[in-house]
Amino acid sequence: MSAPVAADLLVLDRAAQDMLFRAARTANTFTDEPVTDAQVAAIHDLIRYGPTAYNGQPLRVLLLRSPQARARLLPYVSSSNRAKTASAPLAAVLAADVDFHERLPELYPHRPQARDWLADRAARAEQARFNATLQIGYLLVGVRAAGLAAGPMAGFDAAGVTREFFPDGRHEALLLLNVGHPGPDAWRERLPRLPTADVIHTL
Amino acid sequence: MSAPVAADLLVLDRAAQDMLFRAARTANTFTDEPVTDAQVAAIHDLIRYGPTAYNGQPLRVLLLRSPQARARLLPYVSSSNRAKTASAPLAAVLAADVDFHERLPELYPHRPQARDWLADRAARAEQARFNATLQIGYLLVGVRAAGLAAGPMAGFDAAGVTREFFPDGRHEALLLLNVGHPGPDAWRERLPRLPTADVIHTL
Repeated sequence: MSAPVAADLLVLDRAAQDMLFRAARTANTFTDEPVTDAQVAAIHDLIRYGPTAYNGQPLRVLLLRSPQARARLLPYVSSSNRAKTASAPLAAVLAADVDFHERLPELYPHRPQARDWLADRAARAEQARFNATLQIGYLLVGVRAAGLAAGPMAGFDAAGVTREFFPDGRHEALLLLNVGHPGPDAWRERLPRLPTADVIHTL
Repeated sequence: MSAPVAADLLVLDRAAQDMLFRAARTANTFTDEPVTDAQVAAIHDLIRYGPTAYNGQPLRVLLLRSPQARARLLPYVSSSNRAKTASAPLAAVLAADVDFHERLPELYPHRPQARDWLADRAARAEQARFNATLQIGYLLVGVRAAGLAAGPMAGFDAAGVTREFFPDGRHEALLLLNVGHPGPDAWRERLPRLPTADVIHTL
């Protein structure tokens, strides 16, 4: 692992740094060991404290537990992602609730009028996508905090998944996620990361 | 803190859970203690391992260190966010590099043709925003891993900040971020979080 000096400038201990980021990998294969509802609830109970605008928390997670539900997903998954999605212990659709603003009087009680600031659907959908995506970042960290490997997949027909699983018209699918314990040959070599000098600039 | 049973189902130890999520808060005031470039580099060195599609890593961070740079930002910040942005030890613009695909031959070397799949600017900009937003989720966790408080702010004129700070036309501002040690009265009471049953559904 790289950069021992940088790691020592953090307060989070090194084992946690490794579990959440440095040694964590996107898994492409999984063992048969199941992921329980209690584990999923524990992950949500942790990551729900991550910040969102207006405390709106627009992320919704649809677990595809039944063979029927999993089978409905597969036609929308890119061919290179299909086998691992079919065999993962848990597959989930991560979506934004475009009508998250309906809960704001309860979630943001000191400014109940925030619901009305979000009356425009297109502007609200953009907020929903942005903040649900932030929450997906927290969720991937949370899956790792549970000792599990996450397999996020952007290679799928998002409009098709939205139509198939959210006929209510108020949700938008953003990402697919496989979760489990890593199986044999779960990953390739670590791909290169950008140097800090190419990412952080100063004025 | 809530849910001791759920917390025990995670592998990450409780102190780290508290530091990153349960006890962490969005700070509205900060002390004068500076945030060093070495701390910022250590945070990036940790969170750069978070996953992105095509390993594209489109997040870019512009630190506004000089009084002149900070002054250029303030007119674009909503009035309710202006005082804390003016006084935070560190203020940053978090942006997506829409032309992140230029680095893919280096970052995703096993499929160098990925750069060409992203030739369409509008589709690429959507990818850049989505993956940079995921990385902002990792970054907020990383700021907390450094023992610092993050103050993310969506209340600003994003198009104006993009024009002001990224005249190259290849970046889009997504979020403002204040970083520092929490000052007096840094936060209100914790706002309510959605119960898991309202967020996680199963088919």
